Amino acid sequence: MDKMSFSHHISQQYNEELWGILDNVMRMGGLVEQQLGDALVALVEGDNERGELVVTSDYKVNAFEVRLDEECTHVLARRQPAASDLRLIIAVVKTITDLERIGDEAERIARMALHLLEADRRRSPMEEVAALGELVKKMLHGALDAFARMDTEQAVKVAQEDIKADSQYEAIVRNLIQHMEDNPKSVSPIMDILWSVRSLERIGDRSRNICEYVIYFVLGKDVRHTSFEQMAAEATGDRR
Amino acid sequence: MDKMSFSHHISQQYNEELWGILDNVMRMGGLVEQQLGDALVALVEGDNERGELVVTSDYKVNAFEVRLDEECTHVLARRQPAASDLRLIIAVVKTITDLERIGDEAERIARMALHLLEADRRRSPMEEVAALGELVKKMLHGALDAFARMDTEQAVKVAQEDIKADSQYEAIVRNLIQHMEDNPKSVSPIMDILWSVRSLERIGDRSRNICEYVIYFVLGKDVRHTSFEQMAAEATGDRR
Repeated sequence: MDKMSFSHHISQQYNEELWGILDNVMRMGGLVEQQLGDALVALVEGDNERGELVVTSDYKVNAFEVRLDEECTHVLARRQPAASDLRLIIAVVKTITDLERIGDEAERIARMALHLLEADRRRSPMEEVAALGELVKKMLHGALDAFARMDTEQAVKVAQEDIKADSQYEAIVRNLIQHMEDNPKSVSPIMDILWSVRSLERIGDRSRNICEYVIYFVLGKDVRHTSFEQMAAEATGDRR
Repeated sequence: MDKMSFSHHISQQYNEELWGILDNVMRMGGLVEQQLGDALVALVEGDNERGELVVTSDYKVNAFEVRLDEECTHVLARRQPAASDLRLIIAVVKTITDLERIGDEAERIARMALHLLEADRRRSPMEEVAALGELVKKMLHGALDAFARMDTEQAVKVAQEDIKADSQYEAIVRNLIQHMEDNPKSVSPIMDILWSVRSLERIGDRSRNICEYVIYFVLGKDVRHTSFEQMAAEATGDRR
């Protein structure tokens, strides 16, 4: 985002409050990215130390959410923001909810990873799981980047990646179900992988949500519950 | 909630706006309860007509969310609410997000229900699934009731039901995994039931979230990410 677009208040302190909030959102986002990255290493490579780290760090994500909610409430009460400032605060309140839930999903993945044995990993389609993990990690990063620069074009691009994530997810689930049918003794570990893959799919959805808030902030348009085509048309101003 | 507590503004129109928002939250909540009830009938009894109805009605839940978000933004921009009015608007913005997601989970359950055959139902622990369904339906109803009356005692009670929901959920999952190990040919339909049960568990979590917003609104305390004991202590003012 152009820093100037928020430096227009007479009150220097108000400007600083808004910038402080944005800064904290980006710090929270960075932490959540870290959590997701560590959870993926734990899942795919069996690095239990990283898995434990994710589980014991989730409280930090939660603390960011509570603190940012307080900061937003403070600005709403004291500054009575209007127009784009108000939309910014609303976009932040919604974004941090999704970030916190992405943190929860990363924690779930880490817990599942801690259950898995090396033999389970070798028998599972871990390459496909790793590819989906990389895709949603990229989506989360792209969504945070779109948020930082309030870039609607980037937001639309990232949101559209969710189609790919959904289809990769569905292919893995079909594969895992087949695997359970063929190897009934490994149902339990495969279920752990299935839950993890489900979490990855949800992280893709939530990254898409963040992109929708960016479009809402910049254009004042609510593009939730619309098709990708409608979203792209709204974002580019091309409403045929 | 005591209606008088919101009838203190000089502007009659402002009072009406706040009451209109609360009224719409309760209407949205009623619709989501209906969706969950219908999804459960579809899942447990195999009533496909109800299942279809849930799938085709989800857009109504989404429309409520978008409209209520607009109404809240309007009040924030025009009325610049402070203190309890501001907390009310924030509690509403968060509650409707959870209600919309509960609607999504109900739709997921309905879609899974449409996949199942009568034979799949007979072979599954449908009584346990139905019991969990009834419990989370009761939780959702109780959370909405706590919201309508802004009753913190009720909110704590409902939130604590989530412990029971989680333990019922875990018992069903263990049972279903055992069933898949014993009957590898029925992995696919059992997975549909597993996803549905997972959705029920998430609905319990989201009903608990709504209870936390009630406590936030009434007491100005953020009890997310705290234990049930802390939540109860905050709600009753008993902070030993």
